[in-house]
Amino acid sequence: MKIEFQPIGVVHSPFKRQQGAPIQPVYAQNARGTVEIFEPYRAALKDLDGFSRVWLIYYFDRAKTWEPMIVPYRDVQHRGLFATRAPARPNAIGISAVKLISVEEDFIEVEELDILEGTPLLDIKPYAPKFDSYPNEKAGWLDNESIDKKTADERFDKNKE
Amino acid sequence: MKIEFQPIGVVHSPFKRQQGAPIQPVYAQNARGTVEIFEPYRAALKDLDGFSRVWLIYYFDRAKTWEPMIVPYRDVQHRGLFATRAPARPNAIGISAVKLISVEEDFIEVEELDILEGTPLLDIKPYAPKFDSYPNEKAGWLDNESIDKKTADERFDKNKE
Repeated sequence: MKIEFQPIGVVHSPFKRQQGAPIQPVYAQNARGTVEIFEPYRAALKDLDGFSRVWLIYYFDRAKTWEPMIVPYRDVQHRGLFATRAPARPNAIGISAVKLISVEEDFIEVEELDILEGTPLLDIKPYAPKFDSYPNEKAGWLDNESIDKKTADERFDKNKE
Repeated sequence: MKIEFQPIGVVHSPFKRQQGAPIQPVYAQNARGTVEIFEPYRAALKDLDGFSRVWLIYYFDRAKTWEPMIVPYRDVQHRGLFATRAPARPNAIGISAVKLISVEEDFIEVEELDILEGTPLLDIKPYAPKFDSYPNEKAGWLDNESIDKKTADERFDKNKE
C-alpha cells in the first residue's frame, strides 16, 4: 500500500540547513517566518486567525535514511527512533506547534519556527489546548536529558550520508 | 512534486466506522486499542515505554474528498478547513495524542483512542510536554463551540460521498 501526498505550500524560514537550526519551536523563540499556501488551498485558511498557535505538518525533505536506533540531539546514547523526534524517520513527517502571528490571503506569518527554508507543507491544523495540551505527562529519557542542546547538527542530513 | 509514504503499522480499535466514533482522544476516555507495528519498524520502539503519552500520525483512509469550507462536528456554521480538525483534508493526515499503556514486541497498547479500526499508521512520536503542551493558547471558534458533540457522524465519510 502506497499513500501519496502533495505539498499544499512551502515554508520560508531563516534556517537554510540543519546545522544550527533550532530542534523544536520552544528553542526558536525569536525565529519568524512565513508559510506560503498554494492557490487551491487558500480559501481553507478562513477562521484560522482566531487561533494563537497552529500545527504545521510537513515533509522532512532533507532527512537521511532512517535507522531504528539513533543518538538524539539531547542525549548521548542510542534510543529507539520512535522514542525521539529526529527527522530521519520511515515516513519523514514533522509536526511543529508554532505561534501564529497573522493570516494573509496567500501566506501565514509564524513565530517560534524550527523548520528549514523550502520545506514542503502537508497540512495545517489549529492548536487546541483541550485536544493537545497535557502538561503532566512523563517524557521518558527527555525528562532526564544528558545535553541541553537547542540546535541541530548534520547527523540526520542526507547530504552527509 | 509527489511525496510517497508506506504504512508502518495498523490501528486496531473498537470503532469500525466514523458514525459514533469519538472525534478526539479527550472524548475517548475508556477506548482501548492496540497499534500493530510491522516487522521492519519494531526495533525502533525501544525506550518508548518511558513516555505516558504518544502521538500517532496516521492516514484518514475513509475520509471523503476535501472542501475548503466545512461545518465541523462541534459547530453549526461553515469554517475554513485548516481551522478545523476534520478528516477530509487535502493530505488526509491525522494526529492523536493517545495514552500509552504498554509497549510489546510487535504492538503497543493505547487508551483514549479516537482512530478507526484498520487505519494505516504513518509514524509514532513521543509526547513531550515541553514541546507540545501550551495550555493557554486561544482556540478561535473552538473556545465558543456551539455544540458539545463528542462523536462523529457520516458527514466526512467517503462511502456517503
